[in-house]
Amino acid sequence: MTEKPGVVVTGVSGRMGQMLAREVQKSDRLTLVGALEREGHDWVGRDLGICMGGTENGVMVTDDALEAFAKAQAVIDFTAPAATVAFAELAAQARAVHVIGTTGLSPEDLHKIHVAARHAVIVRAGNMSLGVNLLTKVTQQVAAALDADWDIEIVESHHNQKVDAPSGTALMLGEAAAEGRGVALDEVSDRGRDGITGKRERGHIGFHAIRGGDVVGEHEVIFATAGERIVLKHIASDRALFARGALKAALWGQDKAPGEYDMLDVLGLED
Amino acid sequence: MTEKPGVVVTGVSGRMGQMLAREVQKSDRLTLVGALEREGHDWVGRDLGICMGGTENGVMVTDDALEAFAKAQAVIDFTAPAATVAFAELAAQARAVHVIGTTGLSPEDLHKIHVAARHAVIVRAGNMSLGVNLLTKVTQQVAAALDADWDIEIVESHHNQKVDAPSGTALMLGEAAAEGRGVALDEVSDRGRDGITGKRERGHIGFHAIRGGDVVGEHEVIFATAGERIVLKHIASDRALFARGALKAALWGQDKAPGEYDMLDVLGLED
Amino acid sequence: MTEKPGVVVTGVSGRMGQMLAREVQKSDRLTLVGALEREGHDWVGRDLGICMGGTENGVMVTDDALEAFAKAQAVIDFTAPAATVAFAELAAQARAVHVIGTTGLSPEDLHKIHVAARHAVIVRAGNMSLGVNLLTKVTQQVAAALDADWDIEIVESHHNQKVDAPSGTALMLGEAAAEGRGVALDEVSDRGRDGITGKRERGHIGFHAIRGGDVVGEHEVIFATAGERIVLKHIASDRALFARGALKAALWGQDKAPGEYDMLDVLGLED
Amino acid sequence: MTEKPGVVVTGVSGRMGQMLAREVQKSDRLTLVGALEREGHDWVGRDLGICMGGTENGVMVTDDALEAFAKAQAVIDFTAPAATVAFAELAAQARAVHVIGTTGLSPEDLHKIHVAARHAVIVRAGNMSLGVNLLTKVTQQVAAALDADWDIEIVESHHNQKVDAPSGTALMLGEAAAEGRGVALDEVSDRGRDGITGKRERGHIGFHAIRGGDVVGEHEVIFATAGERIVLKHIASDRALFARGALKAALWGQDKAPGEYDMLDVLGLED
Repeated sequence: MTEKPGVVVTGVSGRMGQMLAREVQKSDRLTLVGALEREGHDWVGRDLGICMGGTENGVMVTDDALEAFAKAQAVIDFTAPAATVAFAELAAQARAVHVIGTTGLSPEDLHKIHVAARHAVIVRAGNMSLGVNLLTKVTQQVAAALDADWDIEIVESHHNQKVDAPSGTALMLGEAAAEGRGVALDEVSDRGRDGITGKRERGHIGFHAIRGGDVVGEHEVIFATAGERIVLKHIASDRALFARGALKAALWGQDKAPGEYDMLDVLGLED
Repeated sequence: MTEKPGVVVTGVSGRMGQMLAREVQKSDRLTLVGALEREGHDWVGRDLGICMGGTENGVMVTDDALEAFAKAQAVIDFTAPAATVAFAELAAQARAVHVIGTTGLSPEDLHKIHVAARHAVIVRAGNMSLGVNLLTKVTQQVAAALDADWDIEIVESHHNQKVDAPSGTALMLGEAAAEGRGVALDEVSDRGRDGITGKRERGHIGFHAIRGGDVVGEHEVIFATAGERIVLKHIASDRALFARGALKAALWGQDKAPGEYDMLDVLGLED
Repeated sequence: MTEKPGVVVTGVSGRMGQMLAREVQKSDRLTLVGALEREGHDWVGRDLGICMGGTENGVMVTDDALEAFAKAQAVIDFTAPAATVAFAELAAQARAVHVIGTTGLSPEDLHKIHVAARHAVIVRAGNMSLGVNLLTKVTQQVAAALDADWDIEIVESHHNQKVDAPSGTALMLGEAAAEGRGVALDEVSDRGRDGITGKRERGHIGFHAIRGGDVVGEHEVIFATAGERIVLKHIASDRALFARGALKAALWGQDKAPGEYDMLDVLGLED
Repeated sequence: MTEKPGVVVTGVSGRMGQMLAREVQKSDRLTLVGALEREGHDWVGRDLGICMGGTENGVMVTDDALEAFAKAQAVIDFTAPAATVAFAELAAQARAVHVIGTTGLSPEDLHKIHVAARHAVIVRAGNMSLGVNLLTKVTQQVAAALDADWDIEIVESHHNQKVDAPSGTALMLGEAAAEGRGVALDEVSDRGRDGITGKRERGHIGFHAIRGGDVVGEHEVIFATAGERIVLKHIASDRALFARGALKAALWGQDKAPGEYDMLDVLGLED
């Protein structure tokens, strides 16, 4: 008889942690069996439902990762590099799938995660949205299928509080396009086009960063040639989708061999 | 009994002149009665239809503007400043509506046209496309109706041979937005956004110039605030539309009092 | 010395009522001075902040409309017809601006509201979103400026739980387009285009209802002719914007003469 | 020493034939070595350049297919089924790549082409646009990667003279989506959505046919789920792109083994 895999959410008091916990509880394919916070946090030892401002849900927040992981089939983890590295080892011991959304990992961190993945399933991605990962893959394929008669332009829109331009995801899409075309993005990037620029350079990839209102995130890759254009677009309207991607990864990892995977594996799109 | 107003096209051998002649011939509300070229041009004295690579159409190309204008109810003129200034006077004498698409007119040229308009109907616009003119007007209105909680971004797309960014029409739309909002465009323009820019400045107007393929021209004005966006867009897919705007102006001017008009008057959108 | 106008929110325990109360509290131009519920509701007599699941905010929920209105400069009211008619009279007595988002009002209800508006400022609209109201106005203007050589198509997108097609707002936009063009929408509506339809009929207005995911609401009015298109689009990404429209109306009404107004007046776009 | 492959265009007096001839002449990778018309056509025996209303180009129109094909490395053929079947055999004899854009082929016709392909390279596609073929492939992949929590809607826009809805290409995209998802399009098609339809059915694929102006052809496949959307779009702005797809196929086929191919092979996207 199959049961719903049990999930532990780490860093559960944070904005992302709470969102993850809520999404697991709403899922009919996963069940929330643990909630982790760091030692000394005032949620530890209390009911998670109450802590999140709702009603009791029977899951007590704990600071004992190993004990929590031992009861779980998956750990979903959007925390910080040091914690994530430690969790990778503990999750491996517990034979739990480790889904990592943590960013900013150093090469050494990545190496340790790599070592842990010898004995456990680890899924790691900088952006857990299914749609963006799929768009990235498709962008690479389309770029590989088309020659440089097709001009590539990447347009992204975000809220007016964002401080950097273009977005990391736009750059990731640009990398995918450059890789598909067999060039280095650095050498073909057109950013901040303005003034008397001359004709567009063949083979270049342009970037445009629209800022306004509270747009969650929209990305568009345009391939334009004489007489036709292909446009590949992703629209995110809810930050919860990053959580939902993590849940999908947790489920997907249940019957996989130990190793390190990314969202393209989860989507079945890896080459 | 009403008849179709007769039109003379000036500079008829040029790319725009030929397009205008063809559009007048296709129209069921105007008739082509004259075709003008400069003295010494080898089309002068020959049948226009033949000159344009087709069959005879019975309109002889002439270099005698006054004689041509005398038979016409309208002159459509996309030539050069000196010619246009001379035509304005002759068209006024002939009581023909003078539709001017010529660009690069100096203040003195404009003054002479202004003088001619005391006795004749003159319609003049830098962009004869109905759609763009209408979009400009609407942009001003919408900008006036919304406060600076609405971020304005202008995105345009053109073919990869265009050497300047943003397009003149994008700047015209930016001027309209700034005017609607009661600010100077120069002081609020965000061009070439790239890098660590910090949060978007309230009240600014952003510009983005997409370049690729053979796109004729697309312009989009985005107004974005918390929870909603308004997008006003124009898509040009055929350069002939500039000609068609001129024809509409020629018809519209038939029963108007002497004076200087623009495409907003033709569209009935002037304040 | 000027102060922030005080607002009473009616039907405060409802989904829209709570959203309105929250938006007023977040505003730096209005202050929440009262919260109304019907007699017998269990929120009456309790602190509103607590009732809404947060912390105390010092506003007690009351069932005494007249007393509440007497302290206020504006009443924001998304309730039901009978309540709204009664509130209109009480708000008039209290000299408070009455912002009405209630739908389903009968002709008799409207008459009573009309009578109340002799002595008070009333702003009433079926859709309080600034953007949609503005788009409606602009749609009418653009339709009036263009002849039937421009084909009009209206495309809307909503979540997959919506049961009717096209949306009420799409029909409102269609009405605006038809009015601008001087025709009756019923006679020119193209809905459900499918199969061997023959060429598009000149002057018709097409409707298309896209359904998918959890899209809040997007509306697009396309004007297409030879060589060019104008597209007017509204994207709603947050239902709170209906509340924000009401707040804007409450502020706007503060210095107006008695009378009945709509969101186009608030936006300064009424003819 | 390599030379530019020589091309024969069949049905050269037709609209598509002339466009193909012009595109081959403009190409720097192919050369026009023959132009075919049916016996008795008045272009036969005359210079093609003159026939097309321009200047002499040295290519005489002929009605002798075998002789023409013998000098060529490729035959580009957008004619009619009977002619195409005959040309397939002759092209095979001549060892010329046969690019077939002819539509309406019967199963028997297809069988004969299949037989001819034992000894020759044949590339056949209902739509020669690179972009649309690529979009079709990508649509299938994306549909296969996403489950039925993603609602699929297909929106196409065409000129107001088109008599059928949705377009054949929209249906082809729908087929690709259905195949990706492992369902039969017939059983999940939502066409002409209008009125009180109830909630959207899970797993269905919706179609929408926008008609207006002179739009050449735009197709959009929307995948919408909670919190995000992926949109795959193709915009055709010039009918010449169908010709250019054929030229690409002619070049691609030069070094291939005998067999039947389609545009996905040409693009390198076949599974």
